[in-house]
Amino acid sequence: METKRIYVDHSATTPLRREVLDAMLPYLERDFGNASTVYAEGREAKKAINIAREQVAKAIGAEENEIFFTGSGTESDNWAIRGAALANRAKGNHIITSAVEHHAVLHTCMALEKEGFEVTYLPVDQYGMVSPESVKNAITDKTILVTIMTANNEIGTVMPIEEIGRITKEAGVLFHTDAVQAIGMMDIDVNKMNVDLISLTGHKFYGPKGSGALYVRKGTKISAFITGGGQERNRRAGTENVAAIAGLGKAIELATADVAAHTEKLAAIRDRFIERVLAEIPYTRLNGHPAQRMASNANISFEFIEGESLLLMLDMKGISASSGSACTSGSLDPSHVLLAIGLKHEVAHGSLRVTFGESNTMEDADKIVDELKMIVARLRDMSPLYEAVKNN
Amino acid sequence: METKRIYVDHSATTPLRREVLDAMLPYLERDFGNASTVYAEGREAKKAINIAREQVAKAIGAEENEIFFTGSGTESDNWAIRGAALANRAKGNHIITSAVEHHAVLHTCMALEKEGFEVTYLPVDQYGMVSPESVKNAITDKTILVTIMTANNEIGTVMPIEEIGRITKEAGVLFHTDAVQAIGMMDIDVNKMNVDLISLTGHKFYGPKGSGALYVRKGTKISAFITGGGQERNRRAGTENVAAIAGLGKAIELATADVAAHTEKLAAIRDRFIERVLAEIPYTRLNGHPAQRMASNANISFEFIEGESLLLMLDMKGISASSGSACTSGSLDPSHVLLAIGLKHEVAHGSLRVTFGESNTMEDADKIVDELKMIVARLRDMSPLYEAVKNN
Repeated sequence: METKRIYVDHSATTPLRREVLDAMLPYLERDFGNASTVYAEGREAKKAINIAREQVAKAIGAEENEIFFTGSGTESDNWAIRGAALANRAKGNHIITSAVEHHAVLHTCMALEKEGFEVTYLPVDQYGMVSPESVKNAITDKTILVTIMTANNEIGTVMPIEEIGRITKEAGVLFHTDAVQAIGMMDIDVNKMNVDLISLTGHKFYGPKGSGALYVRKGTKISAFITGGGQERNRRAGTENVAAIAGLGKAIELATADVAAHTEKLAAIRDRFIERVLAEIPYTRLNGHPAQRMASNANISFEFIEGESLLLMLDMKGISASSGSACTSGSLDPSHVLLAIGLKHEVAHGSLRVTFGESNTMEDADKIVDELKMIVARLRDMSPLYEAVKNN
Repeated sequence: METKRIYVDHSATTPLRREVLDAMLPYLERDFGNASTVYAEGREAKKAINIAREQVAKAIGAEENEIFFTGSGTESDNWAIRGAALANRAKGNHIITSAVEHHAVLHTCMALEKEGFEVTYLPVDQYGMVSPESVKNAITDKTILVTIMTANNEIGTVMPIEEIGRITKEAGVLFHTDAVQAIGMMDIDVNKMNVDLISLTGHKFYGPKGSGALYVRKGTKISAFITGGGQERNRRAGTENVAAIAGLGKAIELATADVAAHTEKLAAIRDRFIERVLAEIPYTRLNGHPAQRMASNANISFEFIEGESLLLMLDMKGISASSGSACTSGSLDPSHVLLAIGLKHEVAHGSLRVTFGESNTMEDADKIVDELKMIVARLRDMSPLYEAVKNN
């Protein structure tokens, strides 16, 4: 008997909501025009893009002309950081970020270091939190950009963005936040947060892959990243992906319609999961902040366990979870986030990220815990190290 | 009575083929997994990407591990040029391109000029053709990259890519070609063409917008353009747009299945259109090469006419055509391509690009000519200049 799979990797990607697909289909099936053209087919496409721009702007408290569509969250991060760095180089060459950013941010900062920029990678506390004070202390007269994520994709920690925003605003330094994980998980308001640049992507909130947006506060100096035609008011070249843009707009509208209800439901499932795991499986720890964390996220380290084996055995039981960021899977390095919060290599290696979403239930949480207990016991049985600890 | 619209702007974009949408839908409706994950949903996504990679490789005579997926043709152009330039900077700083390239190429070259690269913009002949001899003469010991398009998007001229490829190969210089317009219009074989890098996008051959690929010959030094996660074997970061990639694969398979039959049909329609326009409407000229041109393309200059008015009146008659590249519409500058082949500003302004595609018929060509005759006559009636010429 085939039982329904339990998908708990919503921070990697989410299924497309039916209403979102319905919003996309007209532009796949019928209104195929190039949005940069003047005739009827092009005007229909342009209209769809305008509606989506309105939806995104409204969802984050921005103005329509501050929203630019991209091809992914990673592209938005690249554009924000590289674009702001290059456009403001005359002012300085110093960028501040944190040790726990997504690789889309970290690798872009590292690339800029090779081009003459100086980057400060702020450490985080044991919960993965960046302290606003550390941002303040790191700012010099050469600092042109601070980029700190809104919420961490691996351990779920929610950063003190408002406070950091007040500091950067006072210092006259641009502030970018990668909010890829945060949309739909908390209220996002560009003015309350005091941010100048926000990256987001549709596929993290039941929208399409290949959709992204960058919020650019009016007056922010930022150079183009993808150069070519005059699309997106000469800021982002390439034929507009109308269906993806329409989907992104619809998805963000739905995801931000009732954040409180959505997160309340997820938090209840997550809390049950975390409580049971910590209570019923020995040698475990919760990674990330106990309270300041996304409602969807549980990240647990199981000592004496190899994370990849855990994932494979969960998969065989019909459970889809991850060991960290999907973007780094295949790499044998332990998570830079778990190392940054002070975990030892071998503990970081035995970590599991479970991220709940719309379709999950309390029963799913229980089912995963029940399976985990058996799998962890079995894997530990094969561990000589665990054997030694048990016998001492 | 509403009559069916006639769409003749296939060089701007094409409708999605039903078989292509069918290849995409599973990844929009059901198999939503992140291709970088290890569990069942992720493996399904990965499989789709592998199939598409095989399809693209086969269509252009490449190997699978030489194909990288991107978010657009423009991104592919940006990556190819910027990536090759930066990775080979130690060898030299000189790039050769042509005056008639797409802005995705030209604007990227111009951006590199500001970063210390030197760019030669080769002139073209009256037909928009780059001479292989001029490429040869422009190569210096500082030259690291030649980038010449396979076929021109505005006037349809097909470039002598094989000859240029022989020259670059002999000189040990990398050769990139923007083949965005050429797929499905001629046989593309990376080895016959002697190219190292090829850019393409699905939406020009009945595939999805937001899909692109870059062919990178094995051993070619090229740096990453979008940095972040480890997707596309660490070469192009960002969650894979599985549906778009699957669609691109299917579309290129179909578009390259019988190029000869497809282009024979289009050429017959196009030739009828060109012959009638030149014969029946005075003060007209064909832009682009009379023989070495894409089967889809007709580009005609109408003297004493303003191109935008012509487009609007055609649109009112249910005909969707363009004045040049969709990517520059909205700009009041005349086409750089038409200026490069020697047209005066006012003649360039009065130009019409008609690009035929699968759904078009001989009757469409006739209908457009019939409407054009009336529209052109009416617009010229309002032109004082035409009045003067007529009276002399």
